[in-house]
Amino acid sequence: MTEYTEVKNIVINEIDTTLDGIDKKKIEKSISLICSADKIFVVGTGRTLLMLQAFVKRLNHLGIKGYFVGEINQPPITEKDILIVASGSGKTIIPVSITNLARKYNAKIIYIGTNSKSPLYKLANIFIEIPFRNSKQIMNSLFEQNLLLLCDIICFIIAEKKGLDIKTLWKNHANLE
Amino acid sequence: MTEYTEVKNIVINEIDTTLDGIDKKKIEKSISLICSADKIFVVGTGRTLLMLQAFVKRLNHLGIKGYFVGEINQPPITEKDILIVASGSGKTIIPVSITNLARKYNAKIIYIGTNSKSPLYKLANIFIEIPFRNSKQIMNSLFEQNLLLLCDIICFIIAEKKGLDIKTLWKNHANLE
Amino acid sequence: MTEYTEVKNIVINEIDTTLDGIDKKKIEKSISLICSADKIFVVGTGRTLLMLQAFVKRLNHLGIKGYFVGEINQPPITEKDILIVASGSGKTIIPVSITNLARKYNAKIIYIGTNSKSPLYKLANIFIEIPFRNSKQIMNSLFEQNLLLLCDIICFIIAEKKGLDIKTLWKNHANLE
Amino acid sequence: MTEYTEVKNIVINEIDTTLDGIDKKKIEKSISLICSADKIFVVGTGRTLLMLQAFVKRLNHLGIKGYFVGEINQPPITEKDILIVASGSGKTIIPVSITNLARKYNAKIIYIGTNSKSPLYKLANIFIEIPFRNSKQIMNSLFEQNLLLLCDIICFIIAEKKGLDIKTLWKNHANLE
Repeated sequence: MTEYTEVKNIVINEIDTTLDGIDKKKIEKSISLICSADKIFVVGTGRTLLMLQAFVKRLNHLGIKGYFVGEINQPPITEKDILIVASGSGKTIIPVSITNLARKYNAKIIYIGTNSKSPLYKLANIFIEIPFRNSKQIMNSLFEQNLLLLCDIICFIIAEKKGLDIKTLWKNHANLE
Repeated sequence: MTEYTEVKNIVINEIDTTLDGIDKKKIEKSISLICSADKIFVVGTGRTLLMLQAFVKRLNHLGIKGYFVGEINQPPITEKDILIVASGSGKTIIPVSITNLARKYNAKIIYIGTNSKSPLYKLANIFIEIPFRNSKQIMNSLFEQNLLLLCDIICFIIAEKKGLDIKTLWKNHANLE
Repeated sequence: MTEYTEVKNIVINEIDTTLDGIDKKKIEKSISLICSADKIFVVGTGRTLLMLQAFVKRLNHLGIKGYFVGEINQPPITEKDILIVASGSGKTIIPVSITNLARKYNAKIIYIGTNSKSPLYKLANIFIEIPFRNSKQIMNSLFEQNLLLLCDIICFIIAEKKGLDIKTLWKNHANLE
Repeated sequence: MTEYTEVKNIVINEIDTTLDGIDKKKIEKSISLICSADKIFVVGTGRTLLMLQAFVKRLNHLGIKGYFVGEINQPPITEKDILIVASGSGKTIIPVSITNLARKYNAKIIYIGTNSKSPLYKLANIFIEIPFRNSKQIMNSLFEQNLLLLCDIICFIIAEKKGLDIKTLWKNHANLE
C-alpha cells in the first residue's frame, strides 16, 4: 500500500505544477468579465459540476449572482451574463448543447478545460486551459482539484479587489443548516 | 391486476375529498403572508421535498423569492421571511430541527401536515391540515399529491390576484435547459 | 379573487379528463417493460424533472432500480435498461440530447409528452400522450400534475402486481432524514 | 490586486501544511472501515456537502456503495454501514441531528472536522482532525479544499489496494451526460 504521505506529495505536486501553467492574463480577463456581468451561470457534469457549484456558492457570498444550469431558481440568461463551462474533453453533450444555446442569447462564454480542439473551445470567448498531460491520480481527479482551487483563487482575488471584509461575506451565508 | 381506470378513480376521489376538507381560511391567511413576505423558504424530506421544490420554482415564476433549505443559493432567513415546512408526521428530524432554528430568527412558520399533536404543530403560526385518515394508495402518495395540488392552487390564486399574464410568467422561466 | 373551491374544481376536472384520455394499452406495455428491465433512467428539466424524481424514489421503494440523469450515483446505461423521458414540447435540448445518446447504447425509450411531431416522438419506442389542448392553469402545471399522478398510478399497479405489502415497501425507505 | 501566483502559493502552502498534519493512523483505520463496510453514507452542508458528494461519486467508481443523506436513492442505514460526517465547527444542526440518528441504528461514525470539543466529536468512532488555526483564505475554503483532497487521497489508496485498473474504474462511470 502506497503511504498517505507519498500520495499526498504526488497530489500536491501535480496540482502545483498545473496551476503554475495557467495563463494569468486569461484569469485577469475572466475576473474583469465576472465582476462586470449581470449574472454568472455555470454548466458541467459529474464531479466537475460539484466543483462549479462550490464556485457558485462562493460567488453568492461575494455578492455576485451565480447559478448552475438545472437549479430550481435558474433565471433566464441574457446578453449581459456569462456562462462558465467546464469539461476536460470539451465534448460532453450536455455542456456543449447548453453552451450552444447560451450563444444564441448572446451570453459570453468562458471555457475551462484541457482540449483546444473541442467544440467548447470554438464556442468560447475565453479559454482557460488547465495544462496537464499525465496524472498518476485516478480518472479526472486532477482536473477537478484544479478547477476547485482555480475558482477559489479567483474568489480570493475578487474579495480583495472589492475590499470585502469577513463580516460582509458571512452576511450572505445561509443560516438554516 | 387492477385496471388503470379503477386506480385512477381511487386516486382522483381520494385527492378530491381531501382537498375539499382543507380549511379555506388558513389558505387565505397563508396567501396573504406569502404575498407580503420578503422571502419564502421551504423544508421537507424525500418526495415531500420534491413537491415543495416544484412550489419554489413556481413562486419564482410569480416573481416571489423562494428557496429550499439546502439549495446552493440559500440566503440567510430573517424575521421578514416565511418558512413553509411540510411533513405528514410532523416529527421528521431535519424539518423539526430547521423549524426550531427558523423560529430563533423570528421567521413565521406555516406547517402543512396531518398531525396536530406533533412538534411542528407547536412551532407553527399557521397549520394547514391535509385531512385524511386512510388511503388505498401506497406509502405517503396521497399526502404528496395533495401537497403539489394545494401549492399549485395557491399559485393560481396568487397569479390572478397579482394580475400576472402569461408573458410575464414566462419571462422568469429558465431558457437554458 | 377566485375562491379556493372554484380553483380546486378546475384543477381536479382538468386532471381527471386528461388522465381519462390516456391510452391504457400504452400504460400496460410500459409497465411490462419497466418490470422486466434491468434499470430505469429518467430525464427531464424543471418541474417535470422533479415529478420524475418522485417516480424514481417510489420505484426504489418497489425494489426497482431507478436513477435520474445527473444524479451522483448514476450508473452507465445498457441495452437492458429503459430511459423514460418527459417533456411537454418534446423538443427541450437536454432531454433530446440525452435520449439520442441512450439510443446509441440501445436502451428502450418511453416518451411521456404532448407532441407527436417532436424529435422525442421519433426517438421513442412507446409514446404515452398526455392528451390536453387547453388548460386554465398557469404554465405547464397540468402536464406536471398528470405526470406525477400517472407515475403514481403505475407504481400502485406494480405494487399490486408484485404483491408487495406495506412492510416490504417501507423496508427500502430512507431512515436518516 | 494580489497577483494570481501569490495567491496560488498561499493556497498550496496552506493545504500542504494542513494535510501534513493529519494523523495517518486515523486514515488507515478509516480506509479499513470503509473497505469492510456494507454502505457508506455522508452528511454535511453547503460546500462541505459538495466535497462529500464528490467523494461518494468516486467511491461508486471504486465499486463501493456510497450515498449522501438526502439523495433520491438513499437506502436505510444499518449497523453494517458507516456515516462520514464533515463539519468544521462540529455543531451544525443537520449533521448533528443525522449523526445522532445514525448512532441509534448502530452505524459507525467517522467525523472529519476541526473541533474536538464538539457534539460530533463525542458521537464519533473515529475523529480525523483537519489541523489548522488560521487561514488567509476567505470563509471555510481551506477546510473544504482539504476535505476534497483528503477524500481523493483515500480513494487513490483504495484503488491501489484493490488493484483496480483504469478500465474497471470507467466501467462504473455514467455514460449519459
